[in-house]
Amino acid sequence: MIPRYSRPEMVSIWSQETKFRIWFEIEAHACDALAELGVIPKEAAKTIWERGGAATFDVNRIDEIERETKHDVIAFLTHLAEFVGPDSRFIHQGMTSSDVLDTCFSVQLVRASDLLLADLDSLLAALKKRAFEHKDTVTIGRSHGIHAEPTTFGVKLAQAYAEFERCRTRLVHAREEIATCAISGAVGTFANIDPSVEEHVAAKLGLKPEPVSTQVIPRDRHAMFFATLGVIASSIERLATEIRHLQRTEVLEAEEYFSPGQKGSSAMPHKRNPVLTENLTGLARLVRGMALPAMENVALWHERDISHSSVERMIGPDATVTLDFALARLTQVVEKLVVYPQNMLDNMNKFRGLIHSQRVLLALTQAGVSREDSYRLVQRNAMKVWEQGADFLEELLADTDVRAALSEEQLREKFDLGYHTKHVDTIFKRVFGTV
Amino acid sequence: MIPRYSRPEMVSIWSQETKFRIWFEIEAHACDALAELGVIPKEAAKTIWERGGAATFDVNRIDEIERETKHDVIAFLTHLAEFVGPDSRFIHQGMTSSDVLDTCFSVQLVRASDLLLADLDSLLAALKKRAFEHKDTVTIGRSHGIHAEPTTFGVKLAQAYAEFERCRTRLVHAREEIATCAISGAVGTFANIDPSVEEHVAAKLGLKPEPVSTQVIPRDRHAMFFATLGVIASSIERLATEIRHLQRTEVLEAEEYFSPGQKGSSAMPHKRNPVLTENLTGLARLVRGMALPAMENVALWHERDISHSSVERMIGPDATVTLDFALARLTQVVEKLVVYPQNMLDNMNKFRGLIHSQRVLLALTQAGVSREDSYRLVQRNAMKVWEQGADFLEELLADTDVRAALSEEQLREKFDLGYHTKHVDTIFKRVFGTV
Amino acid sequence: MIPRYSRPEMVSIWSQETKFRIWFEIEAHACDALAELGVIPKEAAKTIWERGGAATFDVNRIDEIERETKHDVIAFLTHLAEFVGPDSRFIHQGMTSSDVLDTCFSVQLVRASDLLLADLDSLLAALKKRAFEHKDTVTIGRSHGIHAEPTTFGVKLAQAYAEFERCRTRLVHAREEIATCAISGAVGTFANIDPSVEEHVAAKLGLKPEPVSTQVIPRDRHAMFFATLGVIASSIERLATEIRHLQRTEVLEAEEYFSPGQKGSSAMPHKRNPVLTENLTGLARLVRGMALPAMENVALWHERDISHSSVERMIGPDATVTLDFALARLTQVVEKLVVYPQNMLDNMNKFRGLIHSQRVLLALTQAGVSREDSYRLVQRNAMKVWEQGADFLEELLADTDVRAALSEEQLREKFDLGYHTKHVDTIFKRVFGTV
Amino acid sequence: MIPRYSRPEMVSIWSQETKFRIWFEIEAHACDALAELGVIPKEAAKTIWERGGAATFDVNRIDEIERETKHDVIAFLTHLAEFVGPDSRFIHQGMTSSDVLDTCFSVQLVRASDLLLADLDSLLAALKKRAFEHKDTVTIGRSHGIHAEPTTFGVKLAQAYAEFERCRTRLVHAREEIATCAISGAVGTFANIDPSVEEHVAAKLGLKPEPVSTQVIPRDRHAMFFATLGVIASSIERLATEIRHLQRTEVLEAEEYFSPGQKGSSAMPHKRNPVLTENLTGLARLVRGMALPAMENVALWHERDISHSSVERMIGPDATVTLDFALARLTQVVEKLVVYPQNMLDNMNKFRGLIHSQRVLLALTQAGVSREDSYRLVQRNAMKVWEQGADFLEELLADTDVRAALSEEQLREKFDLGYHTKHVDTIFKRVFGTV
Repeated sequence: MIPRYSRPEMVSIWSQETKFRIWFEIEAHACDALAELGVIPKEAAKTIWERGGAATFDVNRIDEIERETKHDVIAFLTHLAEFVGPDSRFIHQGMTSSDVLDTCFSVQLVRASDLLLADLDSLLAALKKRAFEHKDTVTIGRSHGIHAEPTTFGVKLAQAYAEFERCRTRLVHAREEIATCAISGAVGTFANIDPSVEEHVAAKLGLKPEPVSTQVIPRDRHAMFFATLGVIASSIERLATEIRHLQRTEVLEAEEYFSPGQKGSSAMPHKRNPVLTENLTGLARLVRGMALPAMENVALWHERDISHSSVERMIGPDATVTLDFALARLTQVVEKLVVYPQNMLDNMNKFRGLIHSQRVLLALTQAGVSREDSYRLVQRNAMKVWEQGADFLEELLADTDVRAALSEEQLREKFDLGYHTKHVDTIFKRVFGTV
Repeated sequence: MIPRYSRPEMVSIWSQETKFRIWFEIEAHACDALAELGVIPKEAAKTIWERGGAATFDVNRIDEIERETKHDVIAFLTHLAEFVGPDSRFIHQGMTSSDVLDTCFSVQLVRASDLLLADLDSLLAALKKRAFEHKDTVTIGRSHGIHAEPTTFGVKLAQAYAEFERCRTRLVHAREEIATCAISGAVGTFANIDPSVEEHVAAKLGLKPEPVSTQVIPRDRHAMFFATLGVIASSIERLATEIRHLQRTEVLEAEEYFSPGQKGSSAMPHKRNPVLTENLTGLARLVRGMALPAMENVALWHERDISHSSVERMIGPDATVTLDFALARLTQVVEKLVVYPQNMLDNMNKFRGLIHSQRVLLALTQAGVSREDSYRLVQRNAMKVWEQGADFLEELLADTDVRAALSEEQLREKFDLGYHTKHVDTIFKRVFGTV
Repeated sequence: MIPRYSRPEMVSIWSQETKFRIWFEIEAHACDALAELGVIPKEAAKTIWERGGAATFDVNRIDEIERETKHDVIAFLTHLAEFVGPDSRFIHQGMTSSDVLDTCFSVQLVRASDLLLADLDSLLAALKKRAFEHKDTVTIGRSHGIHAEPTTFGVKLAQAYAEFERCRTRLVHAREEIATCAISGAVGTFANIDPSVEEHVAAKLGLKPEPVSTQVIPRDRHAMFFATLGVIASSIERLATEIRHLQRTEVLEAEEYFSPGQKGSSAMPHKRNPVLTENLTGLARLVRGMALPAMENVALWHERDISHSSVERMIGPDATVTLDFALARLTQVVEKLVVYPQNMLDNMNKFRGLIHSQRVLLALTQAGVSREDSYRLVQRNAMKVWEQGADFLEELLADTDVRAALSEEQLREKFDLGYHTKHVDTIFKRVFGTV
Repeated sequence: MIPRYSRPEMVSIWSQETKFRIWFEIEAHACDALAELGVIPKEAAKTIWERGGAATFDVNRIDEIERETKHDVIAFLTHLAEFVGPDSRFIHQGMTSSDVLDTCFSVQLVRASDLLLADLDSLLAALKKRAFEHKDTVTIGRSHGIHAEPTTFGVKLAQAYAEFERCRTRLVHAREEIATCAISGAVGTFANIDPSVEEHVAAKLGLKPEPVSTQVIPRDRHAMFFATLGVIASSIERLATEIRHLQRTEVLEAEEYFSPGQKGSSAMPHKRNPVLTENLTGLARLVRGMALPAMENVALWHERDISHSSVERMIGPDATVTLDFALARLTQVVEKLVVYPQNMLDNMNKFRGLIHSQRVLLALTQAGVSREDSYRLVQRNAMKVWEQGADFLEELLADTDVRAALSEEQLREKFDLGYHTKHVDTIFKRVFGTV
């Protein structure tokens, strides 16, 4: 997480202030439940909410105490006691530090998920808008980087939309994975705290009780969460790579928006670099790489060891902040993407009409010409286009052997772009439910 | 995928024979749909099913043709034509190789998922059985590898059960991800084939039509699939690691089953190595490592490039075969695991009674002793246990300062193991829905 | 490791036959050393060499014994005894299975390294040949996929040469890492076998004695080995990606060789897909992904656990066979690469002269025009090129403000390609030591 | 990089202040070389050194300019000009931003390497000291977590020493990999700057000229660098894991130092958690995970794209700062490690004498007893130890069949620990060159 690739709202989820506020809420909710059970006085719970709720926790003060006690939760509780007074002795009863730490991490990841879901919604909206805008903008489809058959730019964006909608569904699952709460004591047996406390805190925080926590919430949940972020990052990379390709000097079918004042643009007007999407490619690598440490975190020893902690202190913020930034950046790129339909047509026609060779081949076969002969006929005309820059349709029309099988009208029909786009509506219907 | 870590049923999913059979079915189903549309004669579709269905495809013959044509699907179609005869010209009309390859891969991954789901069910059954068997087998809970507070061996297994049940849910999602079908032609525009063909083939094969395929099914689906396998592998590693720990010479609370005839066991009876679970740890690393190439496969160029293919030819079989083997091996380990309840008790009592120190501390505080004094009282008795091997309860009973605050009965009550296991039923209820 | 991406010589290193032959040699060399020490009779060592050396080990027979004993080394020794007779009791004295297994793995990795080094030498030779061939073939250098300034195709290849020469140096280091031998007994203390035996076996096999083996050779060595293969794979990906870019329809500056008979080429002459380099991209992902399990193998428990074994049974062959195949394929691609110098020039001149804008800008500044004015002058002419397809030099020559600062000769000089290639010899000198 | 896992000296290498200072030096050295060539006035170069050298760069001011220009190097140069005055126009002539950025990154990585090498030296010194201290401290060697044969704690540490010495060698290689300098202009052709400038700057900064830079220094170098850090991290994990095992409650052969004042220690004296080594395990996962994005950075497009930049902005500091912290922490752990030789002996004797079973077996065979009989004899006595807690030696002495083959003296000799440690000096000689 570095400022350059961060947005404030996501960053604030991971601030010390936010963390301590969540810790306080966990403790205070637990006090309510304990009071309800008669374990602590109801009056105490009320005082804790009032004084703690009004307090502004001093991060430096807590750090100072931690340096002494070498324990972050104790440091916080000590500081909290400075606000709450004597009733503070009722706080944290029967709980273990991990109850606070893990549940807080869940809350933070849930909030992060919500931001990421909103990011995805914005991206989806941008993709949908541009997809419909270019539903009929014909462009060449490329397999292996080589011209294949026509498609439309809208279809390209519809595919991206469908992909990010899948990402959204995955993220909803991933959010559910980590939306659990553990208030179960030393090794998760509830020996010192009633399970109803966990249920109460969970409900208040929008979480579910963890069925079996063993001091910690099991880390397969987090592994799945970060693996999902890695997959989403990979989809970002795909769309970013597409745009980088389209912006290549030789292709130039689309460009990242380049503000008029952006220096250096017009003396070298060809030199508009797709730096945003290149940046996204790198960010994708980063987020993807974080899936592995998260998976290695799963196999904690026995009821828990603390090896996961350092990993999560870094990838928790890093992965979510980076992905949030990347999704927002990608949204902006999509929204402002400059599209060049004419260049799309020009590129498609680079080898004049040759992309229709397969349709002509098929037509010849269907007209009764043998496969071998059809191939030979197509080939000899295709080579004139390839080697001499001729126009494929003109050559075919002038080839008497071809004409013996196909009329001018039949031939011209094979060069109709509408043939390739006739099912675009079907595709849009599938993706957007509407055309 | 190596024989040592493979089981025949999963291996057969990935055989050439299976692959060609699936290819045939895709083509034949497509012919049905094309016949229904009137594109090809119904009689031809019937002949294709009859002759192709009765054929035994010759893998070597197909290989031979492929060496010449350098194209696997064409080689197969050529071989298929040898059975079908002239009507073979109606096969594959308007389709592209990827329609066959990708849809086949989906079918294989779905079948693999079904085997893995069955594997998980067996593992869950074994875990459940052993969990109930040891619901009340008290053992020490360990955080950081250090004795913390008592739990039961059944709770350990219940946690594993809950974890693998989550894995099962994830796999169901992952299966859904890759259960799609693409019959959409060169760049996925259905230019040469009606979308209804795809719908028909999908329905017949238990798949859903891919909303937007661009010659290929988008690889974010497969990335999610293999990432999920990586998470499941990590959970295998967790349970395997637990067993390895329990089998350590100094711990010896459980052991992998060691058949009476297994060489070398009884001359060195202590030398029973947890080789199965160590093996599982290694296999987990392998499966986990395959998630990354799968994620890198997502960003194909434009409508497709073929870089994903070599990756999938390896990790498709490797990840599923290895995980299938690992789940089956783990199930066997769990089913036959030799558990030593007495050793569990002996280990727990290594520092005679010391695990109850925290309860005593709490009791003193609640009895009105100041936190500092309580701590000092517990400490001076704890150190006798630690340094001189004394019995904690006896020391406390003999400590007049302690006794001034707590009666013998009160003290003894703090050493009651039942205190720690009182909520085991709650946990079992949560996990298994029953006690 | 699948046949499609394998070459026989590397595969044979990993065959059962090769493995058992190496095992035999390790045992027989150890016998020589033991005989020299007087631990076993010299006559026995001689017999072992003679009979074992002449034997053809029966893999199926060994498998059969292993199924019974569940131990591969014992199975082999039993089979070996069937050839050697009574003297077989002198074999393996004081040794542990890992002494054989780990030393054999070293021998295999060393042999694999030697093949890979030869592969790299072939690749370097091909790169050098083509680099000199195209030393002066001018092409546009691209940053961000956008035209920047001219370079030569030879420089591109020289950079690849320098990169693979670094890979070669790395592989020499990696080979050294794993070229060690352990014959040190149960936990590596030489309790049952004299260190001189290890020294003898090491010397005979071209290895160095492992300073401290603890039953196993430490796995940091192997981690470094496989990480190095991962880096080499990444360099393969870089060159493969370059070629894929150059073969794009819109670029077409180079193409993978396409044999005249290769089907489908001439009816769609534009549809020559860079399938070899796309394949290499995928193979790179695979090899790279294997570095991580190898790194996770390092932290074995205490003196050893066997979790590394399953990983190495797979990645040992997989990584080396795949990399061998990939290097050979890349060499072939480079050797036969079809280069289109005219297309390189055509592409470079897509925006007629615009790539020289920066030189003109600099020249204006140096001629005393202020930075702002220079910029404005260049800009207004550049935009005509960009928007109207004008020729940059002609526009500049016709711009009186420009001409006030720069003469025609001065301007023309700025469009001299030789300016950009004047240091190509320097670069070649650095890389190849010669021009 | 988070403060909790950071040390100031390494952090300062990555500060904005350091970065700008290095940028300045690169520019100023280049000016010297340009002045020597007569491209710029010598007086200007002198002024630049004087004024820039005396300047305190204002990070906020540079940020401010960057927000406007969206270009960090231009922002810096603008700020530098504010100090240098009119002669600033001679700065950066013929250079490209990457010349500054990449060379600066090299300088930072070299400095980071030097700190890491010093860290490794401290760790090696600590390991050596403790290894010699415990050269003869007998402890049980464990394979698969199960008691095998005796070794010494010194040998364990000697193995760690040898491993980290290999890490040191690897880091020296890795440092060499990235110690290169590029001052080669837009696409690395030296079109606008003489190669001698690069040579001068390189020499001044302790770097070598990059043979072929293509605007950027090729990223295979950095991939190798970060992969090496990943391997070193894995070795840290190995030693950390060893210590975590030794500190387990049931083993307790060694403990991380626990300061007297550290809270909570003495009320639960058994509850001293190996939190430092657990933390190191997590940090290792993080550093290892960064190797992959670095490998993915290799395949930049053509002469360069900027996708590597975001990756390196994060992993550059993160990997080096984390590894520096981890090595220092590990050194401290080793230096202060509390070792319990008596516990080592007690653990070794858990199954009284059974670890010597193999020696007895061998002795019986050598005394002429058949293999089968020897096995049976050892087995029946071993089982008494295992099942009834008998003493193995006593049982053997009392077994008449055993005694028929071996005398009391012969039997007792088999229980001599010196047998296992007799080659410890050999091992130390190999590792440390001395005993």
